[in-house]
Formats: sequence, structure tokens, C-alpha cells
Amino acid sequence: MFERVAIIGVGLLGGSFGLALKEQALAKHIIGVTRRDSTAELALKIGAVDEIAPTAAKAVENADFVLLATPMLAMEKVLNEIAPHIEGGAILSDVGSVKSSLTTLVETQFPELRKQFVFAHPIAGGEKHSVVASRSDLFAGKHLILTDLEASAPNKVIAVTQLWEALGCDVASMSSSEHDSVFAYTSHLPHVIAFTLVNNLHHQNNSKTLFNFASAGFYDFTRIASSDPIMWRDICLSNKTEVLASIDQFSAQLETLKVAIKTDDKTKLGDVFSDAKRARDEGLIAKKTKP
Amino acid sequence: MFERVAIIGVGLLGGSFGLALKEQALAKHIIGVTRRDSTAELALKIGAVDEIAPTAAKAVENADFVLLATPMLAMEKVLNEIAPHIEGGAILSDVGSVKSSLTTLVETQFPELRKQFVFAHPIAGGEKHSVVASRSDLFAGKHLILTDLEASAPNKVIAVTQLWEALGCDVASMSSSEHDSVFAYTSHLPHVIAFTLVNNLHHQNNSKTLFNFASAGFYDFTRIASSDPIMWRDICLSNKTEVLASIDQFSAQLETLKVAIKTDDKTKLGDVFSDAKRARDEGLIAKKTKP
Repeated sequence: MFERVAIIGVGLLGGSFGLALKEQALAKHIIGVTRRDSTAELALKIGAVDEIAPTAAKAVENADFVLLATPMLAMEKVLNEIAPHIEGGAILSDVGSVKSSLTTLVETQFPELRKQFVFAHPIAGGEKHSVVASRSDLFAGKHLILTDLEASAPNKVIAVTQLWEALGCDVASMSSSEHDSVFAYTSHLPHVIAFTLVNNLHHQNNSKTLFNFASAGFYDFTRIASSDPIMWRDICLSNKTEVLASIDQFSAQLETLKVAIKTDDKTKLGDVFSDAKRARDEGLIAKKTKP
Repeated sequence: MFERVAIIGVGLLGGSFGLALKEQALAKHIIGVTRRDSTAELALKIGAVDEIAPTAAKAVENADFVLLATPMLAMEKVLNEIAPHIEGGAILSDVGSVKSSLTTLVETQFPELRKQFVFAHPIAGGEKHSVVASRSDLFAGKHLILTDLEASAPNKVIAVTQLWEALGCDVASMSSSEHDSVFAYTSHLPHVIAFTLVNNLHHQNNSKTLFNFASAGFYDFTRIASSDPIMWRDICLSNKTEVLASIDQFSAQLETLKVAIKTDDKTKLGDVFSDAKRARDEGLIAKKTKP
């Protein structure tokens, strides 16, 4: 059980983390920080936090667990603000979707905090963002990835692992570079594509007709384009190299398919579509946690 | 009420059409045609058809309503087979996702059937295809588009409209060329993209890791890549011009976004993502039928 947990950024993930800690009785007192008054009020009302601190610096004072849950590009500012106030024994962790850039930031600019930091990424979220969508069971049955553990204090790694397991996660670990590549392909690229596709429709002259006649499949396909734009802007920029590489690979594959359509290559087209269908169906069956 | 309805191709749409007609008591006798014995057995068992005919030619004899529900590229062969056997008063219709190519086929090769034909496209379906997924309420609350009505017999247009309205559809009409453009953007392109994305992942060395750690968002996004590959191959080839144009437009937008990421253009990236989110959210709210 933690005495004082500070959650910097009380959105969907931060809020759900607070609710889940409470439900599992893993924290005595939870202090949140958020820029918006409406978020603060709601976070208190639903019980995601016990208290709202006026600044991040205030929030981390005497905290034994500090969670960074802001968009990626806000983390540098937050770290600058809190670094002088973090207790020596405190655990620092995060829920960021990109790992290499944050790890590098900590290692180069805040090396004194590196051993306290256990980088974490719960594979949970959804297009319904902000604290209003928080749920204590958001993490149950989901993957949680810890990265670059060799430079973190072993007792802190154990504590963070146990914490997320208590919230129902299947905890795995990998290097930050592998992590960023895996999630460029499975998450960041799909978001980029979904946003692009919807925006493409939106800019057609007959966009009203298009959105009206779009099928259930279209709205499923583009659900992730209703995600938080700022969070995703930051993810793309923080994981730039991998995201750009995944876009290039995807574009090359799309070009191949275009040629197959142009040349009436029934075999090629049938093979690509069949392979994709089989891969997705098998992926779902083999998956170790619920998708 | 129709006396004898022939359904050529008893997949998800053909099967659901049979079930829905039965439920609404709109057909006395339904005859199905399918190439697979297992489909025939199942269609009879669930009551989607009353009888399986050995050939399409046999099925349409004395039928007063004939529905083409095969993949797009099989329709020419079917029409060649059934044309000599269709009753003069019978209504011919279809559930095809592409309209211009089929209309041109009928107008050039089967002009004697053109007035009997009422081209129709129910905006319903799903990645769970084949007769096993059939549901009598598949069409309820969905759009149905009729195309190029001016060349169809007015009494047949009225009958087909009433039939689909009885099945719960919101019936609209447009030209086949407008239809093919609308659905290239809202349906065909998204399918092409989903198949491509999944196939791209599938060909990575670490594809097992990728599919395992892929989030709920990924599986939502790629649901349509579990659709029937042959049906979608045929759609892409039948609507080639529009599909290629939509791929080009999408690729150009993706290129713009790539540049924004490469140049750290936070404003541009934030704007594109925000616009897309707003457009999708508003599209869902304004939509006249359930998605």
C-alpha cells in the first residue's frame, strides 16, 4: 500500500489509475494535478483522487509514488517542475505510449532520477478520453509493458510489477526501442491512418453524404480517429522515426495493391486479402489478453 | 407478397434476405442457389430458403423476384445462365456493392432485361460473412440505395422500394456513378487500407509479438480485414477507377501528414487530428440510420 500517490494529468488513464488503486486499496491518499478546473472537480467527485494540488511540484511532495499521465510532449516541463521536489525513495512511473524519447530525456536531463523511474505502458485506453470516461476496470485483462528495466532499481521494478498485476494486467517487459517499433505498427500507424482517412472524407465536397451513408464498418474502422488529438499529435512526434518508417512500409504495400488493382491481378489481390483475413483471425485467437 | 423468390448466392446478404422475407411473410416460396453443399444444407436448416435449385437457370424459372447476391465478378456468368429463363414480368434485383459496372453489363449485354432490373445496395453486412451469420434483422435501420432508376420500370421500382422498406431500410436513390464514388471513399478504400495494414504486420519478422500486443483499438480498426476476401477482391476490380482515385487521394493526404511529422509541425498535426475527430463525431451524430 502506498501512502501518497501523485497523479500528474488526470485524463482517462490517470483517472482510471486512481479509481483502480482505490478499489484495490493500494493507496491511502491520492493527489491529482490537472490544468482544467472542470477535470479537477470531476476527478474529486468520482473519487479518482482525494485531493487536487495547485501545482505538480506541490503534488509530489512526500509522495511515495508519482505517475506521469500527461500527453508525451508535456512530460519534459512536468519533470523540470517536479524533479527538485521528488523524495529520494519515491517511485516514478508513467503511462506513456512512447518510451525511447522519455527514457532518453530522463537519462540525459534527470540522471539522478533514473534509478527511481520504472517506465510503464498499459495497453488500454479508448476513443472516449478524459477523466469522464475513467473506469476502475480499464486495465483488467490488458497487457502492461515495462521497458529498459536494467537501469531501474530492482525493488522498484518489483513494486510496480505487483501494482499493475493487482490491477489485473499481464505484465511483460522489453527494450524501449522494441516497444516503440511494436506500437508504431500496431497503434500509432493505425491512428495516423484513421485520422487521415476521416480527414480525407471531411474535405470532399459531398462530405455530408459520405458520412451519412458510411456503414457500420466505416465507423468501426475510424473509431480511433475520435481519440484525443493532442495525445496523438504528441505520440507521433515523440516516436517520429518509427512512425515515419511504418508509414513508408505501409505506403509501399498500398502501392503494390494499387498496381494489382490497376492490372486486374485477381490472384495477387485475392492472396493479399486472404492472407490479411487469416492473419487477423489467427491473431485474435492467439492473443493472450482480451483485445 | 411474391410467389417465388430466387436468391442466387446464399451468403450473409442472400441468407439474411431470405430470413427477412420469411419473417415479414413477403414470399410464398424461396429458392436458393449456391455452389457449396454445406451452404445449401445450412440455408435450408435455418429456413433462409425453402428449396435449393441445382442451377441458377432452374431457380429463376417461374420466379417473380430474382435477387443476385453473388460476388460482383460472378454476376456476368450468372446473368448469361439465367437470362433465357427469366419470366417477362419478373423483377430482377441485386445487393451488389458496385453499381456502374453491373449496370453497364446489363445495358450492353442484356438490354432486354434492363427495364426489369432495379439495382439495389443495402448498406449492411459485416466481417462475419457466409450464410452462417445470416440474421433476419440485418437490414433493419440501415440505408438502402437504389441506382439509375430512370431506366427501370416504375412499377418495379415501387415494388422493390416497398419490399426493402418492409425490411426496415431507409431507401434512397442516386446515380450509379455517384454511388460508386461515395462507397469507394466510405467503404472500399477503408477495406483496402485495413487489409493492407494487417498484411503489412503479418509480414514483419516479429508478427506474433505485434498481433499479441495489439490493442482493442487495433482489432476494431482492422475488423473489416476479416471480411470475405473474394467479395472484396471483386469489389475493388469492379470499381477500379473510383477505388484507384480514392487510394491516390488518401496517399496524398498521408504524405502531407508525413511531412508534418518529419518537420515537427505541431500545429498542422494537431489541426488534422482535431478536424478528423470533430468530423467523425459530428458524422455519427448527424447520421440518419444506425451505423
